[in-house]
Amino acid sequence: MTPREQTQDQQAQERQLRESHGHLVIIGGHEDRKRDKEILTRFVELSGGADAKIVVISAASTVADEMWQIYDKAFGELGVATRVHLHLQSRQDANDEAHIKDILDATGIFMTGGDQKRLLAIIGGTALDHRMHEALKLRGACIGGTSAGASAMSGHMLAQGRAELHPEKGSVSLGAGLGFLHKMVVDQHFSERQRLSRLLSVVAQNPYLQGIGIDEDTALVIERGVGIEVLGEGAVTIVDGRNMSTNIAEIKDNETPELIDVRLHLLPSGSKYRLPSADGAPEDRRIPQPLLEFLENVTKRNPLS
Amino acid sequence: MTPREQTQDQQAQERQLRESHGHLVIIGGHEDRKRDKEILTRFVELSGGADAKIVVISAASTVADEMWQIYDKAFGELGVATRVHLHLQSRQDANDEAHIKDILDATGIFMTGGDQKRLLAIIGGTALDHRMHEALKLRGACIGGTSAGASAMSGHMLAQGRAELHPEKGSVSLGAGLGFLHKMVVDQHFSERQRLSRLLSVVAQNPYLQGIGIDEDTALVIERGVGIEVLGEGAVTIVDGRNMSTNIAEIKDNETPELIDVRLHLLPSGSKYRLPSADGAPEDRRIPQPLLEFLENVTKRNPLS
Repeated sequence: MTPREQTQDQQAQERQLRESHGHLVIIGGHEDRKRDKEILTRFVELSGGADAKIVVISAASTVADEMWQIYDKAFGELGVATRVHLHLQSRQDANDEAHIKDILDATGIFMTGGDQKRLLAIIGGTALDHRMHEALKLRGACIGGTSAGASAMSGHMLAQGRAELHPEKGSVSLGAGLGFLHKMVVDQHFSERQRLSRLLSVVAQNPYLQGIGIDEDTALVIERGVGIEVLGEGAVTIVDGRNMSTNIAEIKDNETPELIDVRLHLLPSGSKYRLPSADGAPEDRRIPQPLLEFLENVTKRNPLS
Repeated sequence: MTPREQTQDQQAQERQLRESHGHLVIIGGHEDRKRDKEILTRFVELSGGADAKIVVISAASTVADEMWQIYDKAFGELGVATRVHLHLQSRQDANDEAHIKDILDATGIFMTGGDQKRLLAIIGGTALDHRMHEALKLRGACIGGTSAGASAMSGHMLAQGRAELHPEKGSVSLGAGLGFLHKMVVDQHFSERQRLSRLLSVVAQNPYLQGIGIDEDTALVIERGVGIEVLGEGAVTIVDGRNMSTNIAEIKDNETPELIDVRLHLLPSGSKYRLPSADGAPEDRRIPQPLLEFLENVTKRNPLS
């Protein structure tokens, strides 16, 4: 091949990878399920509309059947004929290919709220986990998660922590999440539960993680290689401590660290950014550099885990 | 004079100006008045200790006598023999040199809480206002203010505004403050009343103002030409939107603006920074550039208004 042909070949490969890659719909909890259903409507659209096959994973919750009934009704009202509850009570269930076979042709996979530690304890590293990555990255399935299901999306997962008035050393613990996002950590119910200090506690201690705080009834939609969009009622807050100075290494647990030069971005509902290289990106809108970096990090393809 | 003598002369002048200049003690409200009195103790020290003459300005409050009793008792317990209540009920009072004569040899001036709009309506632009600037800048008096008395310190004063979950266009109004600080805006009861969104609303609309949020029982002490210190129980939050991108010019009132690249600094109690040029500044502590800019802005001498 000539160099030009090589370049064209790479571009074609990249396009194919992108086109085979599904969306992430990361929801801050309490999304509307009864009235306009804006966020769930988008999830259904990105999963294929009326022809979607949507699988609901309720393993974060101790009231799995109640969760399933809520989403079964909501997705039914949105015209989705094929809806399946993957009721998982153990890692054995999540490793049993017969039990999880519905994931193989799912076009949308939705993780309910509950406790993200419970969700990961049941599905982390199982056959189901692997099939979810395949569904997203090879078959273009849409992965949605709300509340605990949102936190579980990232590789480093916010497992638990107090929301105090100030950031505190040692007040938040991380766990191993599903890894659909890397170098990010997601918190939910963000403004409603006043969790900025909690997210700053994570970033202060783990400065290469960017913090994403998602409000209730609000979603961050991520399209691989293309861009991001915020929809719903609230906003998405991003905190970036990669260039900060801090004394956290020198203070004791439960003390408040000094933090200098944390970057904060607020993206209200309606914010929409496409990578400058993406098809259909507006030519005339310059993306501020710190947001461009976030955009590139969050939309780049992650290798199959 | 030779160039070298000129430089020495300028340095001597600058030193004299600095030495004649008093401290600002800006308190986020609810400072302890009964137990350790850490902040009031510092205010008394900076006002001259037992030999201080402290004048209390209660004009922000509609219960001026109650305010006076609280501070009369607290300053008395701290050993201050000379304590005066400047009870001002009108602009006539504040313009009456006989009424305000105690300000002429005050070494400490303390502004109580209440409503900063009320305080400014009574004293803004009066003879008292002018004498307070002289006291600070020519006689080295210490100026303290808590809650409303803290907000009143800056030239652009946060007059009122709702503390919402998100910043909102048009939700905060500014007024003309006393102008001891320039290009800054001060908010108080900051973490306790969850006022970050309110301060971001100010900065979004007025990007050359840096926002200073001070927690309850917490003080920011500013020494002209020398440095800053945070003391008390909480922290000081600084938000700097000078380099941000925002769509606030294009949205409607009550909508949430997009904000990209707001810089946030958190200075907990115990944070202490001296200008690199100040006497006694540690040689080995490099101050991060964004904080250095804040430090230079906040400690530079303002011209007599």
